[in-house]
Amino acid sequence: MADKAEIQEAIKTQGEVVRKLKAEKASKEQIDEEVAKLLELKAQLGGDDGKHVFVLKTAKGTRDYNPKQMAIREKVFNTIISCFKRHGAETIDTPVFELKETLTGKYGEDSKLIYDLKDQGGELLSLRYDLTVPFARYLAMNKITNIKRYHIAKVYRRDNPAMTRGRYREFYQCDFDIAGQYDPMIPDAECLKIVHEILNELELGDFRIKVNDRRILDGMFAVCGVPDEKFRTICSTVDKLDKMSWEDVKNEMVNEKGLAPEVADQIGEYVSMQGGMDLAEKLLQDPKLSQSKQACAGLTDMKQLFSYLQLFRVTDKVVFDLSLARGLDYYTGVIYEAVLTQSGPAPAPPQQQNGAAGEEGVSVGSVAGGGRYDGLVGMFDPKGRKVPCVGVSIGIERVFSIMEQKAEASAEKVRTTETQVMVASAQKNLLEERLKLTAELWDAGIKAEVMYKKNPKLLSQLQHCEDTGIPLVAIIGEQELKDGVVKLRTVASREEMDVLRAELVEEIKKRTLQ
Amino acid sequence: MADKAEIQEAIKTQGEVVRKLKAEKASKEQIDEEVAKLLELKAQLGGDDGKHVFVLKTAKGTRDYNPKQMAIREKVFNTIISCFKRHGAETIDTPVFELKETLTGKYGEDSKLIYDLKDQGGELLSLRYDLTVPFARYLAMNKITNIKRYHIAKVYRRDNPAMTRGRYREFYQCDFDIAGQYDPMIPDAECLKIVHEILNELELGDFRIKVNDRRILDGMFAVCGVPDEKFRTICSTVDKLDKMSWEDVKNEMVNEKGLAPEVADQIGEYVSMQGGMDLAEKLLQDPKLSQSKQACAGLTDMKQLFSYLQLFRVTDKVVFDLSLARGLDYYTGVIYEAVLTQSGPAPAPPQQQNGAAGEEGVSVGSVAGGGRYDGLVGMFDPKGRKVPCVGVSIGIERVFSIMEQKAEASAEKVRTTETQVMVASAQKNLLEERLKLTAELWDAGIKAEVMYKKNPKLLSQLQHCEDTGIPLVAIIGEQELKDGVVKLRTVASREEMDVLRAELVEEIKKRTLQ
Repeated sequence: MADKAEIQEAIKTQGEVVRKLKAEKASKEQIDEEVAKLLELKAQLGGDDGKHVFVLKTAKGTRDYNPKQMAIREKVFNTIISCFKRHGAETIDTPVFELKETLTGKYGEDSKLIYDLKDQGGELLSLRYDLTVPFARYLAMNKITNIKRYHIAKVYRRDNPAMTRGRYREFYQCDFDIAGQYDPMIPDAECLKIVHEILNELELGDFRIKVNDRRILDGMFAVCGVPDEKFRTICSTVDKLDKMSWEDVKNEMVNEKGLAPEVADQIGEYVSMQGGMDLAEKLLQDPKLSQSKQACAGLTDMKQLFSYLQLFRVTDKVVFDLSLARGLDYYTGVIYEAVLTQSGPAPAPPQQQNGAAGEEGVSVGSVAGGGRYDGLVGMFDPKGRKVPCVGVSIGIERVFSIMEQKAEASAEKVRTTETQVMVASAQKNLLEERLKLTAELWDAGIKAEVMYKKNPKLLSQLQHCEDTGIPLVAIIGEQELKDGVVKLRTVASREEMDVLRAELVEEIKKRTLQ
Repeated sequence: MADKAEIQEAIKTQGEVVRKLKAEKASKEQIDEEVAKLLELKAQLGGDDGKHVFVLKTAKGTRDYNPKQMAIREKVFNTIISCFKRHGAETIDTPVFELKETLTGKYGEDSKLIYDLKDQGGELLSLRYDLTVPFARYLAMNKITNIKRYHIAKVYRRDNPAMTRGRYREFYQCDFDIAGQYDPMIPDAECLKIVHEILNELELGDFRIKVNDRRILDGMFAVCGVPDEKFRTICSTVDKLDKMSWEDVKNEMVNEKGLAPEVADQIGEYVSMQGGMDLAEKLLQDPKLSQSKQACAGLTDMKQLFSYLQLFRVTDKVVFDLSLARGLDYYTGVIYEAVLTQSGPAPAPPQQQNGAAGEEGVSVGSVAGGGRYDGLVGMFDPKGRKVPCVGVSIGIERVFSIMEQKAEASAEKVRTTETQVMVASAQKNLLEERLKLTAELWDAGIKAEVMYKKNPKLLSQLQHCEDTGIPLVAIIGEQELKDGVVKLRTVASREEMDVLRAELVEEIKKRTLQ
């Protein structure tokens, strides 16, 4: 740990960073991120006189969702869940932590990012790192061989957070997977159809879905002369092509991973290829690549996949891209990743778009990814019985960030409640009448609010409606009570109309129909 | 750790327990629970020859939710969320872990049940123990002084699980809280109204909502002669009255907590009292209790509360009960707890109903609880600024258990998907036509499924509909394709009818209208 003087110096510097950002009216997230760093430094220091200072913050890399963010989150989830349900999916849930062993050996190098729980006696536990491994554990444990399920839940990675870019240590995954032995490429095509539907409906701007196949990659490595034991590590390097130039990627292959330059150059030729079904056909004729049985199997399936994608009318966005590699070890067949090709209403500066080197193998523009993993369930089954699976994960945090930026840029206010009517009064001593009417409305299924004050001012009651977007006000006074009516006011137009109390519920329903 | 022979003996015994339960056709949960114990023992042993055996299970005290359980969970959540929204609540979310310090000193003796994360460098973190403390942290951190919010999320307690009774180490809480400085007892009354609405709508059977006030309890302790420093611990003992007899409670007060027997007897007289507004009025005249300013303040508010509850028409279920104490330290005013007075379609044996002694202070029949906590936010504010709060938590796991039992007892099948139509064929070589029609339906917003087989049998396609409750089948064959029609079959009645392909979407919508 740094000494006290150093920390004090760092606090001073960081304090200036924050002040500068505030002066520049930087985005709230950016300021929050820097303030968090400042608070952490202060926490390291402890209080004056050795007195411990309690720091009021969330854990590093995590955030609260305020009501506005929750309203956006709800909207996005509804779109996604509707799509999953349209495709006949069920849903399951698994615990937030698993036996540590369940996660061991599934994530390759990324295992170091797993959160462990403290050994408090009993089992050794870890927070889930994704939803795929718990899904495979669930299938093996319950001996399920066929299921189409979605699962939306938070996962945990002790990664370097970059919160302004929507990268957190606690974040949502939205997974859709199809498990079962079926005829080739039909469920795989449905996964891509789902990505296409969801990205269209979320209106995030134009996108591309890149597809490739692990067998094509492995076959390509083989024919180019990559030694077997280097397949996975070279695959990781190829995966960086979306944020590094070919020169840098080649450099890593040659200098870090010990590949011969001419081998790297051969890979370089293949990974620059993009196309559709035609490319798959062409590569099946490629004198070198066609030597690999694996590659041929992958290419034949790729052709089949594109024929189904044509029936699903989604080929406009799908590209067969030989540079797509995906980070995770467990993929065995087709892999895919969706990227936004424009960055929405508030584009981030280019260095943010590219992402820092050394980050996890998902480009920042990536909003969905997945593939086939036919071996994972078998790793859990005592007898090694395999259950073929294919799935897709929607990168929902990135979607939230974009939607939040959109909402901020838009003039339209995000409502955080659904209240239809405010029960109000202009006169004093009518609290009990207001409460009575409010309860009547609740009991009739109307979303209603009432102020928790004995004698609130009419203006403050109306102001609350303006602030929160409540469209109607039901006003009662001595006269209305005598006449058995309620004055129903439309907040936007300020029009008022007497409504018979017996007809109030129907009138509110009619006026607040979507 | 026990030695190998001991564990082997325990495995044998536990194996017999499991076999016996299976032979008796005991409930799945009960069997699962015993199997889990067996697996844990086996894990302790390790494999033969010192080879480690991987145990396929979820962490102790946790469970997966299968699609059927999720369908029930979704229904329950919808009911509860609708109610919260009807009352104008917003929603927030907080991270699953907090700085360990944030939780320190908030839960009294229960702190030992908090899950800590392993120190992997960086901050010391703990899993949240409830949603109330994170809510208070959120308010203080964001300087929010007014909010009505709900929060539905999982919390974590290293408690002794009793899974057959719906007690887990990972479980949902559904919290509704109102923060802000308002006129007395209006938000408090709304919380009780909400409990009343939710329990009614969930149709769990008859219930009672017990209310009391911490100030009345403290005043009562004072006038009975309990020393100040023993208030909290005597309060915990009183809290056990719902599962222990007065004799046992008195015993604990006198023998364990060192109270004079005549002091305990005086408490005994008060805590046997139950009533409504009349009881509050009577106690305000009580020569002894009226000596306590605190008690009088509590009793006056209790009268006020009942007057609002009358306006809300919920007094039929609410009882002012002086024996209600609630376990948590942070309550400062009114407290309440809802209990089911009948135990539903499959009553548990009485010893399960009563709960074991020494368990956390919530009776097993309890389905909701809460109260006023005016001091908690101030514990987080650097300047100690208070934000008065009142809230309620729905004991949703208990509700799930009851609903699951109900669903099992009922003849009606729980659907786990919402699929409206299955696209099928009786003839071979029509996969592509089936996929094309399915995509058309998806694009029109119809929930449709298709089998991932080139040539599935019609019978297996129909069987899938029967199994999963899909109401319609759209059948195509050569003739239908030629005629531009689809044979639409109603699964239940087996009726078939030709529908023009252009009219198919409308026809499906019409037939699957709720």
